[in-house]
Amino acid sequence: MPMKAKIKITLKNGVLDPQGKAIEHALSGLGFDGVNEVRQGKYIELDLDHDDEASARKAVDRMCEKLLANTVIENYDIEFELS
Amino acid sequence: MPMKAKIKITLKNGVLDPQGKAIEHALSGLGFDGVNEVRQGKYIELDLDHDDEASARKAVDRMCEKLLANTVIENYDIEFELS
Repeated sequence: MPMKAKIKITLKNGVLDPQGKAIEHALSGLGFDGVNEVRQGKYIELDLDHDDEASARKAVDRMCEKLLANTVIENYDIEFELS
Repeated sequence: MPMKAKIKITLKNGVLDPQGKAIEHALSGLGFDGVNEVRQGKYIELDLDHDDEASARKAVDRMCEKLLANTVIENYDIEFELS
């Protein structure tokens, strides 16, 4: 039963986000009002072979800690979906 | 009533994703098995001033078309959340 893991990696509060600031300025330069703050993160989708969500979550957690996210400055959030 | 827009920007099917491939190889080098495919995208959060979701969705749709996504090779998906 293959499943898909959808991982959002975002900068922690208080960590400077120059890419987000650049998007913010570009949007206001294009005339879009009402945008107070922009934060940019990463989004990763994994196609997994795991059979159950518990073992998949454990594996993906370790992948985030070891490679995908820098947990000093980033948070991650994992969702699973049967595919 | 401020709200938050959460935008996932992903490469369309068939578009090569060298960053995803690099992550795939790195995961397998670290000993993680059972990962069939990795796709990397972008994740953007906007803090908005809009009062209702309909007008916010219209504005964020235009931001994606004009600046945030390259709609030739990328799809985007927007979710709203009251903040």
